[in-house]
Amino acid sequence: MSITPTTRTFADRHIGVTEVNDTATMLARLGYGSLEELVDAAVPGSIRRDDALQLDDGLSEEQILARLRGFADRNTVHTQMIGQGFYDTHTPPVIRRNVLESPAWYTAYTPYQPEISQGRLEALLNFQTMVSDLTGLKIANASMLDESSATAEAVLLMRRANKKAPATAKTVLDANLFPQTIAVVLGRAEALGIEVEVADLTQGLPDGDISGIVLQQPGNDGAVVDHAAVIAAAKDRGAMVTVVADLLALTLITPPGEQGADVAVGNTQRFGVPLFFGGPHAAYLAIREGLERSLPGRLVGVSKDSAGAPAYRLALQTREQHIRRERATSNICTAQALLAITASMYAVYHGADGLKGIAERAHAHARTLADALSAAGIPLASGSFFDTVLATVPGRADEIIARAAASGINLRRVDADTVGISTDETTTDAHIDAVAEAFGVTVTVRATPGDYGFDPALVRTSDYLTHPIFHSIRSETQMMRYLRRLADRDLALDRTMIPLGSCTMKLNSAAEMESISWPEFAGIHPYVPAEQSAGWRELIAELEAWLVEITGYAGVSVQPNSGAQGEYAGLHAIRGYHLANGDAGRDVCLIPASAHGTNAASAVLAGMRVVVVKNTETGLIDIADLTEKIEANRDALAAIMITYPSTYGVYDADVRDVCELVHAAGGQVYIDGANMNALVGLAQPGRFGGDVSHLNLHKTFAIPHGGGGPGVGPIGVAEHLLPFLPSDPTVAEQAGGAPVVATLFGSAGVLPISYAYIAMMGGAGLTQATETALLNANYIASRLTDVFPVLFTGNHGLVAHECILDLRELTAQSGVTAEDVAKRLIDFGFHAPTLAFPVPGTLMVEPTESEDLGEIERFIEAMRTIRAEIDQVIAGDLTLEASPLRNAPHTAAAVTANDWDRAYSREQAAYPVARLRADKYFPPVGRIDNAHGDRNLVCSCPPPEAFEGTAS
Amino acid sequence: MSITPTTRTFADRHIGVTEVNDTATMLARLGYGSLEELVDAAVPGSIRRDDALQLDDGLSEEQILARLRGFADRNTVHTQMIGQGFYDTHTPPVIRRNVLESPAWYTAYTPYQPEISQGRLEALLNFQTMVSDLTGLKIANASMLDESSATAEAVLLMRRANKKAPATAKTVLDANLFPQTIAVVLGRAEALGIEVEVADLTQGLPDGDISGIVLQQPGNDGAVVDHAAVIAAAKDRGAMVTVVADLLALTLITPPGEQGADVAVGNTQRFGVPLFFGGPHAAYLAIREGLERSLPGRLVGVSKDSAGAPAYRLALQTREQHIRRERATSNICTAQALLAITASMYAVYHGADGLKGIAERAHAHARTLADALSAAGIPLASGSFFDTVLATVPGRADEIIARAAASGINLRRVDADTVGISTDETTTDAHIDAVAEAFGVTVTVRATPGDYGFDPALVRTSDYLTHPIFHSIRSETQMMRYLRRLADRDLALDRTMIPLGSCTMKLNSAAEMESISWPEFAGIHPYVPAEQSAGWRELIAELEAWLVEITGYAGVSVQPNSGAQGEYAGLHAIRGYHLANGDAGRDVCLIPASAHGTNAASAVLAGMRVVVVKNTETGLIDIADLTEKIEANRDALAAIMITYPSTYGVYDADVRDVCELVHAAGGQVYIDGANMNALVGLAQPGRFGGDVSHLNLHKTFAIPHGGGGPGVGPIGVAEHLLPFLPSDPTVAEQAGGAPVVATLFGSAGVLPISYAYIAMMGGAGLTQATETALLNANYIASRLTDVFPVLFTGNHGLVAHECILDLRELTAQSGVTAEDVAKRLIDFGFHAPTLAFPVPGTLMVEPTESEDLGEIERFIEAMRTIRAEIDQVIAGDLTLEASPLRNAPHTAAAVTANDWDRAYSREQAAYPVARLRADKYFPPVGRIDNAHGDRNLVCSCPPPEAFEGTAS
Repeated sequence: MSITPTTRTFADRHIGVTEVNDTATMLARLGYGSLEELVDAAVPGSIRRDDALQLDDGLSEEQILARLRGFADRNTVHTQMIGQGFYDTHTPPVIRRNVLESPAWYTAYTPYQPEISQGRLEALLNFQTMVSDLTGLKIANASMLDESSATAEAVLLMRRANKKAPATAKTVLDANLFPQTIAVVLGRAEALGIEVEVADLTQGLPDGDISGIVLQQPGNDGAVVDHAAVIAAAKDRGAMVTVVADLLALTLITPPGEQGADVAVGNTQRFGVPLFFGGPHAAYLAIREGLERSLPGRLVGVSKDSAGAPAYRLALQTREQHIRRERATSNICTAQALLAITASMYAVYHGADGLKGIAERAHAHARTLADALSAAGIPLASGSFFDTVLATVPGRADEIIARAAASGINLRRVDADTVGISTDETTTDAHIDAVAEAFGVTVTVRATPGDYGFDPALVRTSDYLTHPIFHSIRSETQMMRYLRRLADRDLALDRTMIPLGSCTMKLNSAAEMESISWPEFAGIHPYVPAEQSAGWRELIAELEAWLVEITGYAGVSVQPNSGAQGEYAGLHAIRGYHLANGDAGRDVCLIPASAHGTNAASAVLAGMRVVVVKNTETGLIDIADLTEKIEANRDALAAIMITYPSTYGVYDADVRDVCELVHAAGGQVYIDGANMNALVGLAQPGRFGGDVSHLNLHKTFAIPHGGGGPGVGPIGVAEHLLPFLPSDPTVAEQAGGAPVVATLFGSAGVLPISYAYIAMMGGAGLTQATETALLNANYIASRLTDVFPVLFTGNHGLVAHECILDLRELTAQSGVTAEDVAKRLIDFGFHAPTLAFPVPGTLMVEPTESEDLGEIERFIEAMRTIRAEIDQVIAGDLTLEASPLRNAPHTAAAVTANDWDRAYSREQAAYPVARLRADKYFPPVGRIDNAHGDRNLVCSCPPPEAFEGTAS
Repeated sequence: MSITPTTRTFADRHIGVTEVNDTATMLARLGYGSLEELVDAAVPGSIRRDDALQLDDGLSEEQILARLRGFADRNTVHTQMIGQGFYDTHTPPVIRRNVLESPAWYTAYTPYQPEISQGRLEALLNFQTMVSDLTGLKIANASMLDESSATAEAVLLMRRANKKAPATAKTVLDANLFPQTIAVVLGRAEALGIEVEVADLTQGLPDGDISGIVLQQPGNDGAVVDHAAVIAAAKDRGAMVTVVADLLALTLITPPGEQGADVAVGNTQRFGVPLFFGGPHAAYLAIREGLERSLPGRLVGVSKDSAGAPAYRLALQTREQHIRRERATSNICTAQALLAITASMYAVYHGADGLKGIAERAHAHARTLADALSAAGIPLASGSFFDTVLATVPGRADEIIARAAASGINLRRVDADTVGISTDETTTDAHIDAVAEAFGVTVTVRATPGDYGFDPALVRTSDYLTHPIFHSIRSETQMMRYLRRLADRDLALDRTMIPLGSCTMKLNSAAEMESISWPEFAGIHPYVPAEQSAGWRELIAELEAWLVEITGYAGVSVQPNSGAQGEYAGLHAIRGYHLANGDAGRDVCLIPASAHGTNAASAVLAGMRVVVVKNTETGLIDIADLTEKIEANRDALAAIMITYPSTYGVYDADVRDVCELVHAAGGQVYIDGANMNALVGLAQPGRFGGDVSHLNLHKTFAIPHGGGGPGVGPIGVAEHLLPFLPSDPTVAEQAGGAPVVATLFGSAGVLPISYAYIAMMGGAGLTQATETALLNANYIASRLTDVFPVLFTGNHGLVAHECILDLRELTAQSGVTAEDVAKRLIDFGFHAPTLAFPVPGTLMVEPTESEDLGEIERFIEAMRTIRAEIDQVIAGDLTLEASPLRNAPHTAAAVTANDWDRAYSREQAAYPVARLRADKYFPPVGRIDNAHGDRNLVCSCPPPEAFEGTAS
């Protein structure tokens, strides 16, 4: 007996098409009487789960906020002086509100369509410039997933770029690296058979061939050391050099690039990004000139547009995993764009002098404490430090740490005899006094900011952040407007459908997003004592349990902080399983031709050999070829890696057979969860044949794409793989698989988003979302197939949650390419669908469940209008080169130019359909010349003069 | 001995020009060596304070957030079932994030420039349509300050609109109105000599002539009563009828318009606007056809633009106080736009069925409780109710209320024998069970939503919210995009300087704004026991003390919720003082010709007669005329009302003399604080002659304008006026002046913004802000006076914080009007300066301290470019009608049209200066025809067909 609390559930708000009339209209078009009928027809019975999702009813927005508030209240926010790679910082409220809390920024997609991404590309170019300046290295990417995995990438980079070193040469890690970094690097290197030695490099280089060394500045013990000699020695020995460096320290200390390093990596978290219980944070990787083509991750570069104006876009994409596939040397796909943007804006806002002031104050606080401790006879690990002091207190560490904790301050327990204290932007005199008191010491003198407590030879003399962008924005008004200006140049989900096949750009609701800013979530250091993160741990445990129920696996780890990391972690678990069974020879991974490029790259990085399995003409796995490949590799078979529904957007009815064939041959089945949003509530990969899957919380579970990250890629595994889930990188000698990132829970900070999504949707809502995604995709397919043939369909001619529109025949007839269509869609105010994946010459459309019928019809109208324009070319009414398609997108400047000599009208260019007149988006640049940019690589901010008089 | 915590203070972030080079450049241009020199030259020594502001040093953003968190933690958030005009509600997170927390919405100005305000005008038109539909009345405004003051406005409206009633006719208030409403109405009516009688109208109308009656639905006791008979009887007696009505109740109950009411008023708070400890909330006022020209407040109407497309703008502005001045019948200026927009979006999101569901559930909860109480023999005030039940519990009220409070629920203490319980959108079964338990009763049956517990004859049968806008937005994605689309049509402070003289559009910083969303501030009912609002009260007391220090008065009240309310309250205090002194004859208020129109309107409403004092040609008060007017009204002199610095933007060196002359004649001095931002830290009106001032927290103290409200207009008074500060409207027989709104602290909810602003700026920062405002204004004056003469200057040829650009000579030569310049500025991406105030044919420019030199130079460039265009007209190069000035602003559609036959180029139209090419704002409509709209009044949403094919 109760009064139901609401007219509409959250699911009704999340799902676009919930009005009865709209659903009926769409189903009628498809010839089905109900959503259930459609789903039964589309989804093979062989994989269907026979019960409903065993999840609670959906909560309301108010209920979830109350629930999350409860978790938050069970965390304890102390002053975090633990350090070890994570430092507290002040996020400027103007940046928090207008970036981290602004849909225009966080709902954006990766800038693969650069014409509608100039704002975030500029922000990322600022990031690259900032990293390049501070490290003293020529080129920096944007960005890496975390410091530890970035170090692992640097090790791989050195290994492959150092052509002089013999194949057996080892990599040497200085023992003064953070332990979590050593743990992650060892795991990654082991899989690839790269020998790694950990050595105290202050004692000189070890014997033997060395391909590369890794140093850290400041070290794990806080020491600031002059690396010049060891770097020179390494170079003499033919080794390359990576330095893991703290960017804030580099405002005061000679940067790695000036000491001869080839590579620098590190975290940018302390540039305004909350601690987030460990992530997400943007790490960086910078290189000297000459290593560009070995650089992992995304690189923003400057090119020019069709009018010759400077324009940003991703450079050298041919390096990337989605192009190189099994020849890829890194599987990085999603980066940490939103956090890189935040860090870059922090640097823009503070400028060189502001950052230096922050560094000097943190350093002065550390010196003050060090002086007080020294005066009291407490030995320190080093007399040369930046922000971290390690104090030797035999047998007293626990007592001192407890005393500091009692006054609300967390210190680092290095061991029973050693306490670490790290200062940061937020440190005050009172904090230092309290810490001193915990040691039983009194501060009598404070250090003066600007007096340096490290080797004078290491005081930085070179300038940094000299570009005007780091000098011109000092007031909040300027920053607010700069952020708005950049956001306005871009198209994100807050203005339009982003129908990206395989990328699932669904709603990121405000209720899901709100809690991530709460200090009780955002202010927790990843290495606090467990009781201080009780709320976090409860939330994560419940989320993991829900993902178990959704996937049908036995256990889940949320550690991987991107889908590609998840793939790697999952394959690594399979590898660990085979090794544990004594099957060291099982190293072949079967991957269908249709797979996403990261699959192959991840397999390579997990130490596997990739064997490609053919697809049939109808998009299914070719069972005959599969059988043959299994046979040919029977003893070496490690795994098959399949995506389900396939990347072709169809439910393959044979999937159970595929799994059984592989199992029968002793292989494991990896089911890529990229398309899990077509399964939630309908089928469980853990039950229809999978041994392991990764999920994409940023696709299926509503974490926003953030313009290219953060992502979260948890893995679910069957019972027998549980022992191989990623372990805690801070716990030595732990059972389990190798850790993939620096913290046990990876990008914990954004997990409340997925938690809230699942809790608010409830079992029924999640299932309805899946079903509606099918309805929307099939509706679009049905409405467009007469003008753009749908390439693959499954049961009853139905697609799954996305459809591939085949333009190849039209291209053959007209010359109009899928890219032309993608660019022309910008003139209609749309972000293009996925281009040329998984099949060149096609567009893959995924509306998701969040789009309503009105927006879907607007897209259909645009596509049909474009088809009519193609027909004009085919009919010879105008040439391809003279068509609005090839000349798309059209900037406001272009259609307003005094001179107009095009074969079509200005109005056709700008307003191809009438409804655009009400709300028109003009891209800031015309079509961008990618080749020009790659030929003339510019990866830091160009001088302002470059933009003079040429803006289009 | 300490390490300073920051490189830059908040003041450095708030103030645009803090870079040393920029300041030096600007001062050099003006010929001063330092800011102090400039200030000493501009500000008369006679008014300067001789000490620095006695305020603490400025806090950092992190420190203020911690301080505010402390206040928040000292409030207690209970479930609020007190009712009495304020009800809890769920603000949809998508609306909270994208309206209340979005600079694009909250930094917007009042839509006086409609071409750049189409987004918020549409939102406000939705509000009007919603109110009109729900009340069953033809026309609704947007919006009123609160329910009680709106009721007072309705009483005045009836008094003046009812021409048939004799001058001595009285107004009758039903005794079943909320007590706070009766208190506010009595105060307002008394000043104007309007006789008001409070009577139980269920017993029939009282004898005598009646101009109007006021009923309430539901009543103070919760009763839902059929008003048809009493309304008919009132009409028979020649009286007009106002009904104070709860909009949510009207989704179920026959609306006032259908029962014959002429006017309906009420609060829209429960449509998604937080309780905010009493405000700000948007009240409404709706009227039957025929009363349009008597309507107070702002009215959005539909007109057409230069291309014939429908376009929104404020209608019938000739009614308003700033035009009618001393003939004005209302002084409403700032409304509650941001809250009206929030309420309208709530209605858009829920639609008719959603709202009805919310109402039905609230009602079912109330019925459930009523049934349980009745079954237990507890008598209720009425068996016919909507959401409010009054239970009679002789002698037990306090005990029951305490028991409910112990379970976290606040009930209403009507008196020692009566407890009120109001349900709302947030009420759950558990709440009802707990309330019942507090009464010692158990709920055994729950009512069914849709079964009504009031007179069946009153069940609403008419439709409402039938316009498509209330049917088309159901998903969060749709709402997010609708809000972005509307915001993108407008120009707000997040994109451009808004150099509005007298309106002070300064930065509203994110740190100032963050806390107003916190539940511990937003979730407090205004009538909670004082101990539950301890944090609020501390914050307000401290803020009041700071305002005392800033103004030099003896005390401050924050109750007035707009500047005009402050004016009224201040004049009312003066009136009370004279009356208390037995000077009933002192009713003349001297007002300079240059005064803002609201001054005169407020004086009239405070029962005073306005006598205008001349200004000299140089913009000062004409002392000779003043002396003459004082002489002529010596015994009747109540007050002079001056603005300082004057509305002409100059510091009048004679101000002390003016004050002394008035004081000598027994008058009081009211100093309008509209320009207080030119005094803060430099001079105190309470020390140089003022007896009372109001401040505008939304001008000087950083509360955002919100697109036309909320405003806050506290008054400061000298010692002798302290007894006349506004009193608590809920406390009967209280000493003090009449309350002006329904709650003691007015729009408390936004006070943390001003608190944070003052605390972060500190005394030095506030003073520097004032000085920089002078610098910026004088710099602009100096850079523009050769092309647009600056009309008035004071000492040393300097202006204060704003300057008037005189276009009259240019208009005479060219025909180009100040309005043409204002509209042409839109093409440059600027919001126009203040137009035609205080001098017709001029523009008044106020850059504020928040603008940086770059933005100031951008404005100067635009103005000089416009002057060159005017020169072209003067030179006869092109005619006025053919000029880009007269044809401004230019829409994207206009400059993209296939046909272009203008005398100037498309590029000159759209890109008159090169830097616009990087980031161009196009207005959604061309210049709007105001007269057309007033001749063809449309004040609710037009059908979508109206927009077809005509959008420009």
